[in-house]
Amino acid sequence: MKKHLLTLVFVFACIMTQAQQALWDGSPIVSPEIHPDNTVTFRLFAPKAVKVQVTGDFLPPQKVRTPRGDADAPGTADMIEENGVWEYTTPTPLAPELYSYTLIVDGLKINDPSNVHRIRDVRSVSDVFLIPGGRADLYKINDVPHGTLSKVWYHSSSLGMDRRLTVYTPAGYESGNKRYPVFYLLHGMGGDENAWTELGRASQILDNLIAEGKAEPMIVVMTNGNADLQAAPGESSLGFAPPTTQLPKTMEGSFELHFPEVVKFIDRNYRTVKAKSARAIAGLSMGGFHSLHISKQYPDMFDYIGLFSAAIMPKSGAESTVYADMEAKLRKQFDSKPALYWIAIGDKDFLYEANSKYRKLLDDNHWPYTYYETSDGHIWKNWRIYLTEFVPMLFRKK
Amino acid sequence: MKKHLLTLVFVFACIMTQAQQALWDGSPIVSPEIHPDNTVTFRLFAPKAVKVQVTGDFLPPQKVRTPRGDADAPGTADMIEENGVWEYTTPTPLAPELYSYTLIVDGLKINDPSNVHRIRDVRSVSDVFLIPGGRADLYKINDVPHGTLSKVWYHSSSLGMDRRLTVYTPAGYESGNKRYPVFYLLHGMGGDENAWTELGRASQILDNLIAEGKAEPMIVVMTNGNADLQAAPGESSLGFAPPTTQLPKTMEGSFELHFPEVVKFIDRNYRTVKAKSARAIAGLSMGGFHSLHISKQYPDMFDYIGLFSAAIMPKSGAESTVYADMEAKLRKQFDSKPALYWIAIGDKDFLYEANSKYRKLLDDNHWPYTYYETSDGHIWKNWRIYLTEFVPMLFRKK
Repeated sequence: MKKHLLTLVFVFACIMTQAQQALWDGSPIVSPEIHPDNTVTFRLFAPKAVKVQVTGDFLPPQKVRTPRGDADAPGTADMIEENGVWEYTTPTPLAPELYSYTLIVDGLKINDPSNVHRIRDVRSVSDVFLIPGGRADLYKINDVPHGTLSKVWYHSSSLGMDRRLTVYTPAGYESGNKRYPVFYLLHGMGGDENAWTELGRASQILDNLIAEGKAEPMIVVMTNGNADLQAAPGESSLGFAPPTTQLPKTMEGSFELHFPEVVKFIDRNYRTVKAKSARAIAGLSMGGFHSLHISKQYPDMFDYIGLFSAAIMPKSGAESTVYADMEAKLRKQFDSKPALYWIAIGDKDFLYEANSKYRKLLDDNHWPYTYYETSDGHIWKNWRIYLTEFVPMLFRKK
Repeated sequence: MKKHLLTLVFVFACIMTQAQQALWDGSPIVSPEIHPDNTVTFRLFAPKAVKVQVTGDFLPPQKVRTPRGDADAPGTADMIEENGVWEYTTPTPLAPELYSYTLIVDGLKINDPSNVHRIRDVRSVSDVFLIPGGRADLYKINDVPHGTLSKVWYHSSSLGMDRRLTVYTPAGYESGNKRYPVFYLLHGMGGDENAWTELGRASQILDNLIAEGKAEPMIVVMTNGNADLQAAPGESSLGFAPPTTQLPKTMEGSFELHFPEVVKFIDRNYRTVKAKSARAIAGLSMGGFHSLHISKQYPDMFDYIGLFSAAIMPKSGAESTVYADMEAKLRKQFDSKPALYWIAIGDKDFLYEANSKYRKLLDDNHWPYTYYETSDGHIWKNWRIYLTEFVPMLFRKK
């Protein structure tokens, strides 16, 4: 065979074939373009469009009317057309952060065809970009040792199904024989076992904090908190069904009561330190609610508890034993002196008042906790901040 | 605290807050809708649009002009508007398959806002849906024991970087102490370590074939074959950069020569059977090329070799030792009698002639191989078929 016989043809043909299988290729338009000064330009080639806007959390929020009154929604900005290319450049540099956005073309909300980097959050998919610097450098994949991220299935007898977990094992886990503490990290309503590693950037935050010596190497276990679901949308036997927010077994006790099955599975299948002092649990919104109720239901299980923008009270009519005798259970939990009971919330969070009331209950009973307040509301920006603050405090009690 | 104090407010507020963080929610439009008879309806709410089409691999392909002559591209179909909702229903039921599509609104190619299930292939993101039945049932997540899918980093001394692998371990791996054979499964040009588990459905195919007793439980290792990249777009230290097809260290020997580092890493960190008889290598297109050249370069490493729509010859000017003495190396490989040398290609594949020539070389030398020909071209449909055919033959030589 002649070595060069097919070479040029082959290389060319490869390019054409990509076109064949993947003809839906984007245009050569660059969007978003992050400039050296951290201003950002968005572009869309749409010569027939009449009006194009960009909407995202990098823009000042706008008020929208809701049945509960006004609420904040991501702002919008008009893009300007020239030669069929619509463009918008932020007037000022953006602060370091992971941002989400979409485009609106004549009223139709679409993902940016030039940006393949998208993250689904509950039922919506948005485009993302990252402005580096400061805390946002913890959200980047840096050249540091990387942990392993695994999608693992376990059987739940109490829920009657196989279910999926996301498990982070720190760099060195596979090649070593050391035992590690475990941090259980829970998502919010409508989320799933992927949420914390997508918009939550948990792998990157753990990799980076551990590499900097600011956090103990630990296993992180991210469950699916919807007790009637096996796994995230598209990743269970429901197939490519539309995600649903009608989640019947949510915040009614099933998930909380099944949680010891998760801990048992992890302790059996991973090299864990099987002790309360080596277990943490935290979550955002509904996951904070789960963390509150699981940790008081099983007071000997977790020494470190984090409530991130937590819901406090169960669904109306939830009669589960988990929610019974709340104060008595909290008393028992605090009598055993948890190493850390950490409550964080944004000052514009719709759960701010509920958290204030809960803190008053803890104060009135002299149950110690640490409180961390940020600006803004019930948003991923805050949950990433809380994760970066919480993780360095874990498993350091001597 | 009063148990029901906040409940109704909370549930309502949760829904509103989803709106707050994820306002880019889709409309209540259902698209795609798979009817009981396997016809499919696509819908888009776009009252201001003038022309809306759907394009995808479920439609008859259309010819497009290219510098090489005519080529097949996915067909398009016009959608019809009523009350602002554009709609298209396939005139006949679709055959069981995993399909990809996008929408075209006044010339602008967009993802279906009503479908969150999307898969990136090289530089493009398409919406997907699955028609069950027949072989396509192997592509579904069924209620069978599921293996674990992990994203794992290894260090390559020869490439001078940490790099990422996707590793499938079969159900029971974590809880047992058995050793397993290893199947190395490689992607095509422009692809990455995610490709085989996305459009390739490798996890589902392995789970289902193993559960049916049609395949041996095995570890599957999916590498990144682009020797200058650490990992897939958005998952390396390049951050959320646009994917590039300008891949300098591709098909020039670096990846092939580094491959023993991968095998060593896997053998060190997983419970593998460390023997040629327990190792397979296969890949699609460029991955078939890699499988061909790696298996002959290291003739004592792999007993099972699969070339799926394989490229055969290296890049023009590639001077790597890997490509030298091709026939002598193949002679050595076939002298040691591989358990399976399997070549598969579609009858419309642009690499069909190159594969015919390669088979003639094997025939002329009386080097035995198994040949499997399908219809169609250089497309994922074929690669999924090849995987389902190849895997049951592995590790069964007695």
